[in-house]
Amino acid sequence: MTRQPIWKSIADSLRAEIAAGHYRPGDRLPTETGLAARFGVNRHTVRHAIASLAETGVLRTRRGAGVFVASAPTDYPLGRRVRFHQNVAASGRTASRRVTLLDTRAADAKEAEALRLAPGAPVHVVEGVSLVDGQPVAVFRSVFDAMRFPGLLAHLKAEPSVTRALAQSGLADYTRAETRLTAKTAPATMALTLELPQGAPVLRSVAVNVDAQGVPVEYGTTWFAGDRVTLTVSPD
Amino acid sequence: MTRQPIWKSIADSLRAEIAAGHYRPGDRLPTETGLAARFGVNRHTVRHAIASLAETGVLRTRRGAGVFVASAPTDYPLGRRVRFHQNVAASGRTASRRVTLLDTRAADAKEAEALRLAPGAPVHVVEGVSLVDGQPVAVFRSVFDAMRFPGLLAHLKAEPSVTRALAQSGLADYTRAETRLTAKTAPATMALTLELPQGAPVLRSVAVNVDAQGVPVEYGTTWFAGDRVTLTVSPD
Repeated sequence: MTRQPIWKSIADSLRAEIAAGHYRPGDRLPTETGLAARFGVNRHTVRHAIASLAETGVLRTRRGAGVFVASAPTDYPLGRRVRFHQNVAASGRTASRRVTLLDTRAADAKEAEALRLAPGAPVHVVEGVSLVDGQPVAVFRSVFDAMRFPGLLAHLKAEPSVTRALAQSGLADYTRAETRLTAKTAPATMALTLELPQGAPVLRSVAVNVDAQGVPVEYGTTWFAGDRVTLTVSPD
Repeated sequence: MTRQPIWKSIADSLRAEIAAGHYRPGDRLPTETGLAARFGVNRHTVRHAIASLAETGVLRTRRGAGVFVASAPTDYPLGRRVRFHQNVAASGRTASRRVTLLDTRAADAKEAEALRLAPGAPVHVVEGVSLVDGQPVAVFRSVFDAMRFPGLLAHLKAEPSVTRALAQSGLADYTRAETRLTAKTAPATMALTLELPQGAPVLRSVAVNVDAQGVPVEYGTTWFAGDRVTLTVSPD
């Protein structure tokens, strides 16, 4: 019988302790030095064990901040209404958003077509990151008709919920029309934002939301971190 | 102004000819030697141009068979009923299936749970590849209750349509219940089957189909080649 390498049995121990709840999602692991002392090995061996657990999504490493227990994959139901925040909250976790860009600029050809605007018409753009228990799970960009929702950016600046910002701009309800899904490789900057290894897969969703009259109000693209989100589709 | 490299202008020429319809999806390009003679360059330069067009999905290279014009990405509507073949046919292309495995074996824990069977109960398994205009676009595995559909494998052997094989086994209609979607990296053997570069992203769909009484009849997993298929979701 072949004995398994030391790093592998350290990885197994850590995985078992995480499964048993000794370390919980979002917890920071002891330092490499601390783990090396505990297991009586050098830091290189500890690093190997951590890398293997990061690769399978059990741990996530944040440069300069340490090593954390990753959250379990999050289900994202793709229904007529977006219920991501409510859904995450229902599972006892915390969803949050970090807005990285609020801008008004000319629509490109695709955006104009999706929102049924003249090419070059002014649009509001909001970009940011969605997090679950502090872990990035998606990067998003949403585009809106700036003429129809003149005050939208100010509302979004005050609070990052698109649903509430649209309500404050006079749109009480909207629903998802078509969604288009493709698997992509994360570009380097996106991988950095999502704390993913280079070349990691992401699920890109391109969706159009419409008002009660069927007029497009939001053209949104979201890139979900492959191993952290499962999109679920159920018939209504 | 910087002049662009020769390989790039050759790639531009080929792309323009493909866009103009001189070469159509599925067509084989002239050999490297032929293209080198035509453009008055060496084969290395031609290879560089072809590699760049293969990377962006315009061309696909098949070992030993040559270089082909890739099909445009295929839309795959994720509705209550699976209409892939009809949809592809409606766009003037040809969908086909190649079955690579027909087997009866014990269900694993996940399969048993999904089909509501006792662990280890016998299941029929069909695996294969879906193609559009001869280009692989997805790899699939479907699992069925062997006790409920005893003759299914014989029907599937005769023709690879699951819908018709189930009809011949007495199941007139079935619909898609839940679908779970995740972006993954293609394992090496799958990349080979899908004619994708190593490490390419795939969209994994795990779906349960149910009969009119809501009883699960098919537990199916499909891995879609990232750049060749767009899953579309529309409210019914």
